[in-house]
Formats: sequence, structure tokens, C-alpha cells
Amino acid sequence: MTDLPQRITIHEEGPREGFQIEAGPISTADKVSFCEALAETGLHEVQCVSFVDARRVPGMADAMEVAAAIRQRPDVHYTGIALNLRGYERAVTTPLHITGGLQMSASNTFSQHNTNKNNEETLREQRRQMQFFKDSGIRVDSAIVMTAFGCNFEGAIAPETVRDCVGSLLKIADEFEVTLDRVRLADTVGWASPLQVQRVLGVVREQWPDLHLSLHLHDTRGTGLANALMALQMGIDDFDSSCAGLGGCPFAGHKGAAGNICTEDLVFMAQEMGIETGIDLDALIECARMAETIVGHALPGKIMHGGSLSKYRQGAHG
Amino acid sequence: MTDLPQRITIHEEGPREGFQIEAGPISTADKVSFCEALAETGLHEVQCVSFVDARRVPGMADAMEVAAAIRQRPDVHYTGIALNLRGYERAVTTPLHITGGLQMSASNTFSQHNTNKNNEETLREQRRQMQFFKDSGIRVDSAIVMTAFGCNFEGAIAPETVRDCVGSLLKIADEFEVTLDRVRLADTVGWASPLQVQRVLGVVREQWPDLHLSLHLHDTRGTGLANALMALQMGIDDFDSSCAGLGGCPFAGHKGAAGNICTEDLVFMAQEMGIETGIDLDALIECARMAETIVGHALPGKIMHGGSLSKYRQGAHG
Repeated sequence: MTDLPQRITIHEEGPREGFQIEAGPISTADKVSFCEALAETGLHEVQCVSFVDARRVPGMADAMEVAAAIRQRPDVHYTGIALNLRGYERAVTTPLHITGGLQMSASNTFSQHNTNKNNEETLREQRRQMQFFKDSGIRVDSAIVMTAFGCNFEGAIAPETVRDCVGSLLKIADEFEVTLDRVRLADTVGWASPLQVQRVLGVVREQWPDLHLSLHLHDTRGTGLANALMALQMGIDDFDSSCAGLGGCPFAGHKGAAGNICTEDLVFMAQEMGIETGIDLDALIECARMAETIVGHALPGKIMHGGSLSKYRQGAHG
Repeated sequence: MTDLPQRITIHEEGPREGFQIEAGPISTADKVSFCEALAETGLHEVQCVSFVDARRVPGMADAMEVAAAIRQRPDVHYTGIALNLRGYERAVTTPLHITGGLQMSASNTFSQHNTNKNNEETLREQRRQMQFFKDSGIRVDSAIVMTAFGCNFEGAIAPETVRDCVGSLLKIADEFEVTLDRVRLADTVGWASPLQVQRVLGVVREQWPDLHLSLHLHDTRGTGLANALMALQMGIDDFDSSCAGLGGCPFAGHKGAAGNICTEDLVFMAQEMGIETGIDLDALIECARMAETIVGHALPGKIMHGGSLSKYRQGAHG
């Protein structure tokens, strides 16, 4: 395991994922408290809300209020996402740290189902959006390739297809003279296995050895942390995840399927392997338990139920 | 990942784990049906019951009836476990495939809490038990080292301690002229990380390069399949697991903590990595859903909620 990173960065997406999918209603005050508690754990980023149509996503009806109410620490980025220009126009009026991103899906069919655009149309849309970011002074920090490990419509995705998508997005970034902080590969519908992670990372790395890659993994089929382990073994040091495993997968076969990998379980694994996270695991576990209290039902995270090892270690006489 | 095994063997422990810990009551007929369904999936072993004191474990009060009622396939081992001679005496009167085993804990303190014996006393007890197996014509097939990756009382366990335990058990096997099919290393209280798995396997392997090692992993803190991945990468081809993630961990900090790793999630991961399991994943997922129906609540397994990929692959036009 010689390629293990010394330190990883985690982008916390739990609040946005959770408030978006939970039946709720969850009070604005609870949302704010949860975001504030997460920011006390050492996480450098907390994705708080998404600026989407409240008729489609009722849990985000108070996104503007949540964004305005959070008492911000200076060392944490409180972020929000938008899916279109209308969303960005609202987002930039809040105190959140709003950045732009490039995105496409490695599956043309998924794109058509999800956004009603094929990949060619998506790339044209990305250029229009980049122009908007430029005109609005919104910094563009990342690109994401969705369904990078498989797709419910197209099945397996060839690593070379993912590489070509990365190439297309990097080309647009270049056209706009933007240097991306990271390129995210997303297992949007939970197809990844450790072998597929290895293959896709390998092919993309071969083309761009110095590109900063980040993984957005789901735990739809239980292999989430195993996929993360494979990525760690290949030196990946940047992950999206969700406290308590908040969220879910609207594309899974059954309601109740798991969504993003669980932040505190990932932090536990990393720390046990000697990888720094900068995060106070026990404080993060308390956040996960707070999340369960807020949503009123059990969430998928494991270590919040199993308990951390710190108290056993302190008490150990071995 | 050059050391990946071509094929793995899985020892299914779900029925015994589940019936033992679930509040129930679960009908004898349901228990029998579940064991029979599991045996249709390609699993070579189904651990059906434990022969324990029904006053302490009410869910095992009908162990004799379950064992007698199962319609056995000739190509499957239907097994049961016993914790003491009294249990073995009942077990061997059933149609189950009963074998003996050697066991000890790498943590002396865990042993004292769990069995009221220190390690020296445990080894004496093991010799008495081996004599009983010999006298009763019970074949001894395995040894297990419990808390091999950490202990709530003693904290971290040195890999060398595990190696010494394996040595002690192999010595007893030798004394009785028994060749073990496998030596099982158990993460009894869910302390293992991929790094610890690598270290412990490495130290034991160094001493006995040809010893057939098997892992009994728990998912108490979410790293279960990541630990399994590390073991696969080191060529381990033999695992205990539990359909639907049935069971739990009585030693965890909180009620509701996960127990053994989930069989169908492990099978999914293995198959996606090109490793044969001999198991029909879709049939196994149906068993996991059957388990949820029987116990009447959600169980930890992921792929039974996420859905297998086979139908998507069949429908894929990519």
C-alpha cells in the first residue's frame, strides 16, 4: 500500500443530500444547527443546500433561509449547489461559498434521461454556463464525470469513455483559461467495484499523470468503502461523502437504497490506516447521531452505531 | 491485484446469527425455509443453528426441530455450532454436519470476560475438547483466533500475538494428529482496518506460508468489505459471512450495530472483480429479502436494496 496518501480531503455533502431526499419536514433551525455542528469537526467544506425548484424538492424550499442563518467559521467553506443558471442567480446572493463546475455523464443515455440532452448538447450547454460563470465572476473549481463506473441504461462504461469525457471537460476549461482544482469521477448509480475503480483511475491517470482526481462514491451495493480503499491505494486523496450516510439513490432498484459513502466511516478507515483527515472522529460521530435525531429514523452509517475505538483505547491496559 | 484468488469459498452463517439475536419469535417453519432457500443459491455451507442454552438464547429453543426438518441437498453442508460438550452431545444426534474446532482469543482479557478462562486455561480446555472429539468420532476441521484485530478491553492486538495464538492451536492439532482445513482469524468486536488485516495476515503468513487462512469479518464500523478486499488482494479465498447482514454485535457500543459482513454484498464485490463464488447472486438477494420479511425489519445488507446489476446488464444496449 505504498501509494497511500498521507492526508485526504473530504467534501461533506450530508446536509444537502439529506435535506433534499428526506420526507421531513425538517425545521430550518435543525438544518442550520447540523451544518454548524459539522463545521466544528475539522471538515473544511460543508455542502449545505441546493438551489433547486422547491416544487420539485420541497426540502430545499428554505435553502435561502438556511444559507443566511448559518454562523460561519472563517476556516470552513459552506457551499451550495445549483443545477442551472436560475439556481446560480439565487445562490450567489447568499453568504455561501458558490463555485462553478463543469459536468457531463459518461453515459449518453443517462444524460438524455436525466437532463434531456445528449453529450454533444451537454458540452454546448457547459460552454454557455462557463461564459455565465465568467461574466458573473464565479470561480470554476472542478469538473465532474457522472456514471463513470457504470450506468443503469448503458451497463458497463469503458474506462476509455471516461477518459474521453475528462478530456472534453478539460478542453472547455482550457478554452476559458480555467485551471481546475480537481476532476471528480462519480459513481452516480452505484456500479463501481474495486476493480473498476482501479481500471478507470488507471486509464485516466495514464493520460494525465498530474491531474488532481477526486472520487464521488455511492454505497448502493455495499462496496463503497472497498472502492475508497482501492482509490486510496492508488494515491487518491480527495473524496465526497455524506455524514451518517444521509441521502439515498433515486436511481436504485428499491426505495431505501444507500446513497453516498458515509463520512465518519471513511474517516475511521483512513485514520486507522494512518492517513490524516484533520477531522475529530468522535465529534463527527456525534453529528451523525444528531442527523438520526433530526430525520427521525436510522441512517446507514455504521460507526455511529458500533462506537468509535477511542474510549476503548484510552481504557486499554494492553 | 495480482494475488486475487480465482475463486472464493463462503461459509454462510446468517441463519444461526439471525435466529440467535433477533427478538423474534421466528417460527420453526420460517427458519427451515430460510436455510433451504440459502442452500439453493450455490452456497456450499449453511450454518443453521447453535446448540446453546435456550434460557439464554430463546431463539435457539427449537434448534433440534430446525435441524431435523431441513430437507437437505446432497451437495451442501448444513452445519450447527456448539460452545461446549453438552451442546455437542445434542448436536451430533441431529442430521446436521457437525465438526469440531479449536478456539482461543488473542485477548486474554476478552477470554476472561467471555468465558471466565484465561488463555492458559483455554488451551487446557481445548485439549480436553479435542480428546472428546476424538473419542466421539467428531472430525476437527478448523481453528479460530478471536479478537485477532483488536479488543475492547486490551485495545490494539499485536500481529505477533495472533501468530502465537495460531501457533498454540496448531500445536494442539499436531498433538492430536489432526490436519486443519483452515485457520480462521476473527474480527470478533469489529476493530479491523485494511491496514491491520494486511499486518496480521502478513505476520501469520510469514510463519506458515502454506496455511489455509480464512477470515471472519464484522462490519461494526463500516470497513467490513474494505477489509475483505485487502484480504482478497493478499490471496485469501475463504470467508465467513451472513446473508442480509443478519446478526449483530453484542460487544458494540450501541444496540443495532452491524454484525458479520453481508454475504450477498461480498458475493457482488467478488463477482464484479472476476472472482468466482459459485453462487447465484440474484437468488441470494431473494434470500436476503426473505430474511427481512421473516424478521420484520430492515437488515444491513446493501445490494438487496440497491438491486443487482444483472437486469441492467441484460437491458443495456452499450
